[in-house]
Amino acid sequence: MQDDISEVRVFAPATLANLGCGYDVLGMAIHGPGDEIVIRKASEKRHVTISQITGDNGKLSLDATKNTATIAAQAVLDQLDLGGGFELDIHKKMPFGSGLGSSAASAVGGAFAMNELLGAPLSRHELLHAAMQGEAAASKAWHADNVAPGLLGGICLVRDNPSLDVVNIPPPENLWITVLYHPEIEILTSEARERVPSVVETHHATAQAGHLASLISGLYESDFDLIKRSVVDHIAEPGRRELIPHFGDYEKRSLEAGAIAFGISGSGPSLFAFCHGEIAANKVAQAFQYEPIDTYVSKVNTQGVIRIE
Amino acid sequence: MQDDISEVRVFAPATLANLGCGYDVLGMAIHGPGDEIVIRKASEKRHVTISQITGDNGKLSLDATKNTATIAAQAVLDQLDLGGGFELDIHKKMPFGSGLGSSAASAVGGAFAMNELLGAPLSRHELLHAAMQGEAAASKAWHADNVAPGLLGGICLVRDNPSLDVVNIPPPENLWITVLYHPEIEILTSEARERVPSVVETHHATAQAGHLASLISGLYESDFDLIKRSVVDHIAEPGRRELIPHFGDYEKRSLEAGAIAFGISGSGPSLFAFCHGEIAANKVAQAFQYEPIDTYVSKVNTQGVIRIE
Repeated sequence: MQDDISEVRVFAPATLANLGCGYDVLGMAIHGPGDEIVIRKASEKRHVTISQITGDNGKLSLDATKNTATIAAQAVLDQLDLGGGFELDIHKKMPFGSGLGSSAASAVGGAFAMNELLGAPLSRHELLHAAMQGEAAASKAWHADNVAPGLLGGICLVRDNPSLDVVNIPPPENLWITVLYHPEIEILTSEARERVPSVVETHHATAQAGHLASLISGLYESDFDLIKRSVVDHIAEPGRRELIPHFGDYEKRSLEAGAIAFGISGSGPSLFAFCHGEIAANKVAQAFQYEPIDTYVSKVNTQGVIRIE
Repeated sequence: MQDDISEVRVFAPATLANLGCGYDVLGMAIHGPGDEIVIRKASEKRHVTISQITGDNGKLSLDATKNTATIAAQAVLDQLDLGGGFELDIHKKMPFGSGLGSSAASAVGGAFAMNELLGAPLSRHELLHAAMQGEAAASKAWHADNVAPGLLGGICLVRDNPSLDVVNIPPPENLWITVLYHPEIEILTSEARERVPSVVETHHATAQAGHLASLISGLYESDFDLIKRSVVDHIAEPGRRELIPHFGDYEKRSLEAGAIAFGISGSGPSLFAFCHGEIAANKVAQAFQYEPIDTYVSKVNTQGVIRIE
């Protein structure tokens, strides 16, 4: 531990999972919403604790054994076989239960902040497992499609969830994303999970794999027409779109405004539109300016979690 | 039609389908085995006919309505709204019923030869549909994972089989393939199809999609370690490997000899080993030199079907 550092402040970005054709294996970090987390030594304590949470409307527990940020921070200590007292301030600067990876942002922020405070003994890849422990406690599942892009930045493909084998896919320079978030729609992740069938017909599974693989090719080639043709979801969207009022209308208006593809972020209710260029992304956002909908316009966030002042 | 050309000779290569993780959507052309097809005008006739077939041990019918080469050649005429008499010589220079795309090679050769004789009014992409008609007549299915690489060359990803939306994936310079073909093992495609379950668990489907997408990334990045980790088949191989005597032994010996990945080509019985470099590929072939097994060592064939003298 570097004795000269007594406090570290980090920002962990919101993330979009699935991206239409990559259910449980593809995710992307964006700019704008996220979690700001401060960690400091608390020599008088023997554990990792939470000193305050803001921006959560009082909905999150201060119990450090139940918060993804502190679970992930503790997991970093465990991984390094270290102990000691630390306390975290968690400032939610993004909606939660929104499909934008709120629990993953906390987990990534907690793990990254702890590692920074310790003098960065672990690489970002080495932090994946600790962050995933926080995320898994919240989501009750071991899927790294939010945690990986939050930690590593960019677009992340999870080759294998159990072993956290993650591949970074280079985003096209001109890929922009407009996120639509309707604060009044609530979707329980458990309900959204139930909408995904437990088995799929093999011909659908292989077609879906073809779409995901083609999206990867489209990203490498910056082929926006191929990206457009590839963002097709036969697995999760058919059951989940019914949970989101006006889904079809929002999709139609986004595409008419210039989006090249549209889908549900994670388990929703947030929706994403892929756009070719900033102008198109802003036009999509403008199409919803008179609706009770928050919009975020962003390029792919290739940094992931960062340390801030 | 160019009146100065009265005969065209083409060579259509063998192809490997599936490639481990891309069931029904991924294929690759190789050098060596294939079909040589000669087409010439036969003004006295009114249809496309077969004048001779060699290399088939008398197993293929001379009935032009049942041969994939002539069906595909006729489909080119139909596509162009043309008629006339033509005859084909078909020289099989590859095993059939082998999982190396024999019917696709004939279909590709027939379509390409006809188009060349007519002065090449159609592009290779425009010939996909005609070649697919030949292939579908033989395979009773509409999967372009052999026809596409045979026609376009290289590694082909079929984003969408019904519309024949095909993406070319750039092969790494140093990717070599060793094919093992055991002439005494016969597998009926219909039996091999039955070994593939009609439904799969969603978590297997998404994991498989992650593998295929990662293979695409590995090919773009020339990342042989990622290619190795990605060639994993949870869909077709578990049921099909039992149809191939000594599969496990051949796999083990190939990997020990230096292959980075191993699997079944198409519905088998041919097997493929991916290798990093020519030396490794030859070592894999040498490991089977005392077995009753034919081996083909090849780079990816990026040309596909070609005209020859």
